[in-house]
Amino acid sequence: MKVCIIGSGNVATHLAKALWEAGHIITQVYSRTLSNAQLLADETDSTAIDRLDDINLFADVYIISVKDEVIFSIAEKLSLPGKMIVHTSGTVPVEVLGHSSEQYGVFYPLQTFSKNQSVSFVDIPVFLESNTEDAMNILKSLASISDQVYEADSEERKKVHLAAVLVNNFSNHLYHLADDFLRKNNIPFHILKPLIEETTRKVMDRTPAEAQTGPARRGDESTINAHLELLKNDPELYEIYKVLTKSIRNHS
Amino acid sequence: MKVCIIGSGNVATHLAKALWEAGHIITQVYSRTLSNAQLLADETDSTAIDRLDDINLFADVYIISVKDEVIFSIAEKLSLPGKMIVHTSGTVPVEVLGHSSEQYGVFYPLQTFSKNQSVSFVDIPVFLESNTEDAMNILKSLASISDQVYEADSEERKKVHLAAVLVNNFSNHLYHLADDFLRKNNIPFHILKPLIEETTRKVMDRTPAEAQTGPARRGDESTINAHLELLKNDPELYEIYKVLTKSIRNHS
Repeated sequence: MKVCIIGSGNVATHLAKALWEAGHIITQVYSRTLSNAQLLADETDSTAIDRLDDINLFADVYIISVKDEVIFSIAEKLSLPGKMIVHTSGTVPVEVLGHSSEQYGVFYPLQTFSKNQSVSFVDIPVFLESNTEDAMNILKSLASISDQVYEADSEERKKVHLAAVLVNNFSNHLYHLADDFLRKNNIPFHILKPLIEETTRKVMDRTPAEAQTGPARRGDESTINAHLELLKNDPELYEIYKVLTKSIRNHS
Repeated sequence: MKVCIIGSGNVATHLAKALWEAGHIITQVYSRTLSNAQLLADETDSTAIDRLDDINLFADVYIISVKDEVIFSIAEKLSLPGKMIVHTSGTVPVEVLGHSSEQYGVFYPLQTFSKNQSVSFVDIPVFLESNTEDAMNILKSLASISDQVYEADSEERKKVHLAAVLVNNFSNHLYHLADDFLRKNNIPFHILKPLIEETTRKVMDRTPAEAQTGPARRGDESTINAHLELLKNDPELYEIYKVLTKSIRNHS
C-alpha cells in the first residue's frame, strides 16, 4: 500500500520504518520541521515536506501520528476524499477524522517508543477502529506488521491507554523517585536494576497478585513505620508511600 | 566454609543453593516445618532439623534467613560463642544478633526471590555489615557468589530497602491495579506485557527522568481528565492516579 506519514516523532518514525520494511511505499513524510521530516524520509525512501498544502493524493492511506492535542487541527486542514485517514492515539476519538474523508480509523500501537531504540513491531499489540468495514480491512492489512491485532472502539482504547499509563508512566516515575531518593543518600541507582528486571520477569508468567511480596503485603507494620520515618522530610514521597501501601493492603 | 541455614523460605533457599554451588558446605537446614527443611537439605547435601536445640556447633557461619519479625526471637534463643551469626534482612538492625555471639553481621541480597524461579546470584547486589573486621572478612568470602558487593550500615541498608519497595512492590502493585482494571473491562492483562518489558529496558541505559513519557509529563490536561473520568467510580485508583500524576508534573 502507499502510505503518507504526517508527523516525525517516535511513533511516526517506528511505524513508518516498520511499514516500509514490510514492503509498503511511504509516499511523503510531513513535519513542521523539514529537517525532522527529512531524517525519516531518508530512512524510508520517501520525500520530506513541511507544508500540509504539499501533501499529494498519491497515497492510499494518510497516517496522522502527532501529539494528541494537534490531531484535530491537522485533520480539519486536510481534505482527502476517497482516501483512508488514520491517527495513532490511545485517547483521541476516531470521529475527529470525519472532516477529512469518508473513510477513517485508528491504528494504536501499545508501546513506549524512544529515539535510537529499535523495537520489534511484531510483538507490539495494535488496536484498530474504523468507521466502515472497508476501512477496517485496510487497517488490518497495515497491521500485519504485528502478531497481536485487536479491534477496540474509542472507549476501550481509552481504557487500554489508561492501563498503559499505570504500568509505564507510573512505574517509571517510581524508578525516578527511587533514583532521586538514592542520589540524595549517595547510593547509585544501578544497584536497583537487577531487581527492576526481575520484577518485570515475574509478571511474565504469573499474575501481579501472585508475584507480590514486601512489607505492605506481609502487613509488616514495623518496617512500614521505619520507612515512613525515613520519609518524614519528603512530604511528596511520604504521601505516595502511604497511598500505595494502603492500596496493597486492601488488595492482600 | 561450613554454613548452617536457619530458615527455608525464598531467600534462604536461593542463598543456600548458591553457597553450596560455590563449594561451601551446608551443615544443617532448620525450619519449623521439617518437610520444608528437608526439601532444601536434599538440594544442598545437608541435614534437616525442626528444633533450634538441634543446631550443632560444626558450622563456621549461622545464617538466619526468616521473616523480619522472627529474627530477634530466634537470635535470642541461640548461643553460639566463637561463631559468626548473620541475618539477611534489609530492615532489621545488625545489633539484634549481639546476644548470640560476639561476631555478627548482615548479608542482604537486593532481589525478589520466588519459589521455582532460579536466579543468578552473581548479578545480585549484596550489602554487607558486621561488627568486627574479621566478621566482615567472613561475609566478603561468602559474598564472592556475587559480582556486586557493597558495605552498608543498617541506616544505609534501610534506605536501599525502601528504594527496593518503590521499584518492586509498588511497581508490581501498579501492574496489579492495571490487571484488575482491564479485567473489569474484559481486556486481558497480557496485552500490557510488551510495554512492561520495554519500560524496564529503557531504564537500563538511561535515567528514569529521561525515559519518562505520557500525559502527565506532557501536561496533557484533556487526557488526564478523560482518565480521571473513567476512574470516578473507583476512589482508590482515582486517588493513586491523581497523586502520581501530580508528582510526575512536579518532577517534569
